[in-house]
Amino acid sequence: MISPIQAKKLIAANIRKIKNQKINTNNSIGYTLNETIYAERDQPPFDRVTMDGIAVNSQTFKNNHYEFNIESVHFAGDSKKILKNKYCCIEVMTGSVLPEGTDCVIPIEKLTIKNNIACLEANYELKKWQFIHKQGSDHKKGEKVLQTGHKIAPIDIALILSCGKDKINVNGEPSIRVISTGSELIPAGKKIQPHQIRMSNGPSIVAMLNEQNYKNCMHHHLVDDKKIQKRNIKKYLTQSNILILSGGISMGKADFIPKILDELNVECIFYKIKQRPGKPMWFGVGPENQLVFALPGNPVSAITCCRHYIIPALKEMCGGENPEKEYVQLQKNIHLKSKLTYFLPVKFLKTNNAIRKVTPIETNTSGDFTSLSGTSGYIELSGSKNKFSKSENIIFHKWKHP
Amino acid sequence: MISPIQAKKLIAANIRKIKNQKINTNNSIGYTLNETIYAERDQPPFDRVTMDGIAVNSQTFKNNHYEFNIESVHFAGDSKKILKNKYCCIEVMTGSVLPEGTDCVIPIEKLTIKNNIACLEANYELKKWQFIHKQGSDHKKGEKVLQTGHKIAPIDIALILSCGKDKINVNGEPSIRVISTGSELIPAGKKIQPHQIRMSNGPSIVAMLNEQNYKNCMHHHLVDDKKIQKRNIKKYLTQSNILILSGGISMGKADFIPKILDELNVECIFYKIKQRPGKPMWFGVGPENQLVFALPGNPVSAITCCRHYIIPALKEMCGGENPEKEYVQLQKNIHLKSKLTYFLPVKFLKTNNAIRKVTPIETNTSGDFTSLSGTSGYIELSGSKNKFSKSENIIFHKWKHP
Repeated sequence: MISPIQAKKLIAANIRKIKNQKINTNNSIGYTLNETIYAERDQPPFDRVTMDGIAVNSQTFKNNHYEFNIESVHFAGDSKKILKNKYCCIEVMTGSVLPEGTDCVIPIEKLTIKNNIACLEANYELKKWQFIHKQGSDHKKGEKVLQTGHKIAPIDIALILSCGKDKINVNGEPSIRVISTGSELIPAGKKIQPHQIRMSNGPSIVAMLNEQNYKNCMHHHLVDDKKIQKRNIKKYLTQSNILILSGGISMGKADFIPKILDELNVECIFYKIKQRPGKPMWFGVGPENQLVFALPGNPVSAITCCRHYIIPALKEMCGGENPEKEYVQLQKNIHLKSKLTYFLPVKFLKTNNAIRKVTPIETNTSGDFTSLSGTSGYIELSGSKNKFSKSENIIFHKWKHP
Repeated sequence: MISPIQAKKLIAANIRKIKNQKINTNNSIGYTLNETIYAERDQPPFDRVTMDGIAVNSQTFKNNHYEFNIESVHFAGDSKKILKNKYCCIEVMTGSVLPEGTDCVIPIEKLTIKNNIACLEANYELKKWQFIHKQGSDHKKGEKVLQTGHKIAPIDIALILSCGKDKINVNGEPSIRVISTGSELIPAGKKIQPHQIRMSNGPSIVAMLNEQNYKNCMHHHLVDDKKIQKRNIKKYLTQSNILILSGGISMGKADFIPKILDELNVECIFYKIKQRPGKPMWFGVGPENQLVFALPGNPVSAITCCRHYIIPALKEMCGGENPEKEYVQLQKNIHLKSKLTYFLPVKFLKTNNAIRKVTPIETNTSGDFTSLSGTSGYIELSGSKNKFSKSENIIFHKWKHP
């Protein structure tokens, strides 16, 4: 059996990047940028007034000059004005272009304006270039502003638009099909018999992928009938970049999945990982380089494997950067029974400092998903040792991939 | 002028909760739950087999019983079976109901099955209830599973569906209108003059709100003409629970916003906060309890005020819980010039332990949004002091509200 680290390497080795797409910048939040963004102009594009007030020439001010005739009023959106007489001023609004012949702004709060004359309070101290956001001080025209691979956040929308780009290249939408199998599964809202259970894995996997901005993602359910399963899996395989199966990969008599995948020329790359939960995870590659993940049927295993393997694979498939490792501090000693890697769900403790402390949540079994609710993520207790002490720093994974 | 803490209190005092809505559980990711979810049945609803294998009676096993006649085969989804002869076994699949008369499962890996007889490997040690997920061990029928106010994560979708609920009550969609003003603003993709600037605030505010799952959110732009502004602001005010204005609130001659809002019977609750960026933020309440935020026009102030004040207000309006405070550790001494509260954007340092360390990013001015890209959030340096030392624990806010 391979380790989780080996499993990740084998998955990574089989990823094919998908084609990008052009979308409106306004709708690009959460996408991965697939081009370099260059500054359209200097930012700011001109010496920009940052306060309402008057623009004056600092040299004339040095002569204890406290009264200024207002030559004109200058609004944001007006083209550049010129101060004709250097002992006068131009009234300026926030966002306007600094008039030629001036080099500083005195805020309106320091002035009284009467009969077209601005009177300044006494003993005012003035600095050249005050209340001016200098042209090109944030970046110069043509400078690299954002790089390929960057995940677009709200502030980036402002940045990209300020570069004049209303459309940008971002990652394409991988087509994802989620298939749950099992004759015992009955959807919520339908009548249920005592020996049946509610269908929950497929929708929660789709929800986790939707939360990560993967929208072309559908769930289908198949009963335990080999013919039906084969026919449908074949169809969904041709439609997808990533095929996710939930259930049907154990060694039971109704577990047709590995056999069906083999018949559909999906090459098995590995089956089983030295981990808990999620040991019987299956991974293979389809004839058109589709990644095929067959996850164990219980909800904790399915959601943990989806988060730990599938989402990072999707991110790479889309040209995104996977984040730096995060660590948390254990709040109790943990002694594991076997040399598997354990993924234990944790809650954060309330603290008033920068140290992130967590308590692992006891789960009964890998079928116990009730206790997972309200956890922030899971810690990764490496299979290389089995004693972990209080205050130890442990690798942490948020449920929601950053 | 009031402090940021006072500003938050004044906003909170004016929030009216909005009506909830019923939606499909499958689409409820990121919403705030507005009902209590109770377990439909015991979870698991029956003693559930967790391995493929045979179900036997542990008492007969104590007599060194290594061969079992297979009475029948039992699949997941079959109704409960009975073991007739306690020296025999029933072949069971993962997910099936434990047959009556049996109390443990022996995995298939330990068996060879031939001629309808299961032969167990020698010296096998067996525990009563092994490989059985006991009925009701996760939760009992009728138990509270999730509470009002809970933010729905992917694992909760599984939990709610397993309670049989395909529809749930969640927060309603607050109607949000974002209005940017300024004749100098030209949208990306359109031709621009040297004295004009790109329109970026409105779309980036909408993006930040969309990212937080607020979808009923539109941006409109108005030129600096008082009549046009008043007519449109009046219209958008009647359409919204929250009205956000960007720009036009300084003391300039084209800054009509405070006057227009007054004429539309929006009561000013406060104007200006002792903070940087975002000092000239304006907040008021409309005639139908609309919250009206007028944000400063520069991008850093607008996005910071939106994150710090508007998003927590929206969360409360929707019945959600705001998260615990988070702290990070400063990586350098900071000496502030004035006794304002400073919101400084920060990047995380790479670490291999649980202490979160940050470096503040230098920005030229509050108009400098280039340097904000790639920051994770901002620290709040309280106005009560102006020296902060390296290694001090400081309150941190993620750009993306948790």
